[in-house]
Amino acid sequence: MKEIISILFENFETLDVFGPIEVLGRLKDNFFPRFYSLKGGIVYSSQGVPIVTKPIAMAPKKDYILLIPGGGGTRALFNDKDFINSLFDLSLRADYILNVCTGSVLFSKTGLLDGKRSTTNKRAFKLTEQSPKVIWEKRARWVKDCNIYSSSGVSAGIDMTLGFISDILGYKIAKQQANEIEYIWSYESGNDPFCNIYD
Amino acid sequence: MKEIISILFENFETLDVFGPIEVLGRLKDNFFPRFYSLKGGIVYSSQGVPIVTKPIAMAPKKDYILLIPGGGGTRALFNDKDFINSLFDLSLRADYILNVCTGSVLFSKTGLLDGKRSTTNKRAFKLTEQSPKVIWEKRARWVKDCNIYSSSGVSAGIDMTLGFISDILGYKIAKQQANEIEYIWSYESGNDPFCNIYD
Repeated sequence: MKEIISILFENFETLDVFGPIEVLGRLKDNFFPRFYSLKGGIVYSSQGVPIVTKPIAMAPKKDYILLIPGGGGTRALFNDKDFINSLFDLSLRADYILNVCTGSVLFSKTGLLDGKRSTTNKRAFKLTEQSPKVIWEKRARWVKDCNIYSSSGVSAGIDMTLGFISDILGYKIAKQQANEIEYIWSYESGNDPFCNIYD
Repeated sequence: MKEIISILFENFETLDVFGPIEVLGRLKDNFFPRFYSLKGGIVYSSQGVPIVTKPIAMAPKKDYILLIPGGGGTRALFNDKDFINSLFDLSLRADYILNVCTGSVLFSKTGLLDGKRSTTNKRAFKLTEQSPKVIWEKRARWVKDCNIYSSSGVSAGIDMTLGFISDILGYKIAKQQANEIEYIWSYESGNDPFCNIYD
């Protein structure tokens, strides 16, 4: 049983969190989701969803998977030392790190993506200039490098999470989850129909 | 500007709500999402997401769209008179009603679907026996009858919501939303790849 630590902040993108959490949270024998923010309390998504969070200081010290969403709220955090330092500490002890959308750019500010492959939202690809030492891949639904996954924009987080489940629990379980939520899973990580849409 | 009233209850299905809310909540000139439950307070989804809600008694009396999710928690409410009566009152005054997954079966308990076409989750199609006067359509990604939309399971709520947006704001805006969240929209309401998967 692994805790899924979702790191929330004001104006996170709703589906970046709750797409992956839908899928992971259904596998109740394997994962249990919990929600944290730097100081705890109610955090609102960009779409106005009020979520109750615990302070990051209360997070466990091992046996967890880190989920980092993107969204408009990431920009205010790129240079927030307290937040980035907390994210760095959490990341070092995570079994796996799942970045969704511009969450990968936010995570890259820890320096832990330097020299590693990653992707992000195609509409916000210019943000990758924040971390030039990362090997940013533009054409990808999602990218895996060591224990770090990064997805393209918003919905791609669901495809990535199903890919992650396939990697650790097997394709059959991932496909069953996709079927149960009637989701048309893009199971090829390199197949990215949105890559060139904003050029 | 229309308020989106999401009706939450213990063990609602996470993505049933936050898929549609992602899409509607991005159209900030048209919609603003708010979250209600019968008595208000913190409500947990089936996947353990804690949402802050207001009591239904505080909901507006006009100019809103009703979003009714499904999930394991619907079963406990089919015969809950207080809840169904509240839902009935809210539904009569809604401009549109969006049912996701088994939310359509829950809504059908108001009697307001009798004689109308609807669909629901393919894995839970037996639940349609709850309301035999509804014209349940098994093969459908989503169904529209008058001002009432009903979707198939979980993810289909996103396709339905994009279809709803297409109906009231135009295809171009709906397609743009799908692209922005990198979602592969099943824009044909009758195209249902999951229809026979659980037979």
